[in-house]
Amino acid sequence: MYAEPPAVDIDVVNAMVHETFPGSRIRCTGIGPDHATATLLTGPDDVRPGGYISGPTQFSVADGALWYLVFGALGRFEAMALTSELSIRFLRPAIGTALNARAELATAGRRSVVGSVTVWADAAADRPSAIAQGTYVLPLPA
Amino acid sequence: MYAEPPAVDIDVVNAMVHETFPGSRIRCTGIGPDHATATLLTGPDDVRPGGYISGPTQFSVADGALWYLVFGALGRFEAMALTSELSIRFLRPAIGTALNARAELATAGRRSVVGSVTVWADAAADRPSAIAQGTYVLPLPA
Amino acid sequence: MYAEPPAVDIDVVNAMVHETFPGSRIRCTGIGPDHATATLLTGPDDVRPGGYISGPTQFSVADGALWYLVFGALGRFEAMALTSELSIRFLRPAIGTALNARAELATAGRRSVVGSVTVWADAAADRPSAIAQGTYVLPLPA
Amino acid sequence: MYAEPPAVDIDVVNAMVHETFPGSRIRCTGIGPDHATATLLTGPDDVRPGGYISGPTQFSVADGALWYLVFGALGRFEAMALTSELSIRFLRPAIGTALNARAELATAGRRSVVGSVTVWADAAADRPSAIAQGTYVLPLPA
Repeated sequence: MYAEPPAVDIDVVNAMVHETFPGSRIRCTGIGPDHATATLLTGPDDVRPGGYISGPTQFSVADGALWYLVFGALGRFEAMALTSELSIRFLRPAIGTALNARAELATAGRRSVVGSVTVWADAAADRPSAIAQGTYVLPLPA
Repeated sequence: MYAEPPAVDIDVVNAMVHETFPGSRIRCTGIGPDHATATLLTGPDDVRPGGYISGPTQFSVADGALWYLVFGALGRFEAMALTSELSIRFLRPAIGTALNARAELATAGRRSVVGSVTVWADAAADRPSAIAQGTYVLPLPA
Repeated sequence: MYAEPPAVDIDVVNAMVHETFPGSRIRCTGIGPDHATATLLTGPDDVRPGGYISGPTQFSVADGALWYLVFGALGRFEAMALTSELSIRFLRPAIGTALNARAELATAGRRSVVGSVTVWADAAADRPSAIAQGTYVLPLPA
Repeated sequence: MYAEPPAVDIDVVNAMVHETFPGSRIRCTGIGPDHATATLLTGPDDVRPGGYISGPTQFSVADGALWYLVFGALGRFEAMALTSELSIRFLRPAIGTALNARAELATAGRRSVVGSVTVWADAAADRPSAIAQGTYVLPLPA
């Protein structure tokens, strides 16, 4: 008799991500079939001159939110989903200690998941620092 | 009598980057008017399951090489050049300890610098792990 | 006594676009400070095998909607606004006679306007055939 | 006894493209396992104010060159290869009657082909009007 697989909720995602990719600093803060949110607490190495959160740090949280969106869209954790491409546009300075991203689903197929992402610092959800779109490819069925 | 401003060579870039953005782990390893190369020594937090260097780490070295390309194309250090947009495509796993990027100039104008980047691990320059293209915007003259 | 400059509404945009770029087949169908919509009636040259509207045709309507968004965001017609970059992702086949796009504003500054676009055929607004993001650069003030 | 399938050369590509996608105006002018070139003769509808070849027309020739690159990389015509995503950056005005593109292979796998493209008008190969990168997805084997 087997245990039910865990439902894909915030705690499951964070536990699975921590287990398979311990270096990740990006927490899942919300997940559903068509969206996911993520937050990263910035450290001194994330900050460029002027107190601006660096572009690569913003990319990382956008990429993380898209990864969690894959889990939400598939309804399961999928460690081997991989970013195939992502483009990001930087809109205004990101200043703050919590960097947030929200990914929204465009389409999920057998082969890939595509979505759009908005990134903002602290409570400035209405003033995004970056927008992005990208694709995760799924492993082929065995 | 004034000292000559330093020429933009590898040592100048690394010194200026270290001074203005101490958190950066990305070293300039080559620079000229139409190209720049950069290297990042990966640590445990850069590696995903399977020993693959993460996408955001690859983005960071691509973005760094483009930044150094701006210095090479302008012939001067320009801390306030900022990435306006960058798209990246991941081609194959990146496995190794040194992650390298080479940026090549497409155009440099008064307002922006555009270039293409190739990313690879260790000595696998003929088997890139990612390619990217992007734009840095320059500060407006006062 | 001077006439008021024309407000930027649908008719003004279509008249100005027709005057300055007679080859354009893309009609403005909606415009405001943070969005614009556009429609192209497809012809036989737009259709690939299987009845699918081609990728370049989808790109053209996305690019057109972004151009109209620039007018809406600036509150004036600006013929010399130019696409600096645009990335597009194709999600599913586009089949139909009217190809539509809706652009939404991410940011408008002195130098550029950035937005996201959704593309769909006929009435399938809930099943987009493509999504895109891009940047228009504005002419420098004289 | 069966005839040999045609080798993938310029004439085969142009014949197959013309047969399956008669609306295409983009001719293959060169093809090999790691590159392809394409040319489009511009007409009045391709030209924006100032005599500039429009962005969508430049996108179309970049997309065409990538499609031909797929044939070169696979060694066969593959009508059902489809663009999954393409990003393009516009560098300077394109003025001329022949718009050219050269695509170079980054990687070809079972599922997709990725490449970079340079676009230029007439003989200005050293002054590209646009650069692009993109992905074609291949049909899954039956």
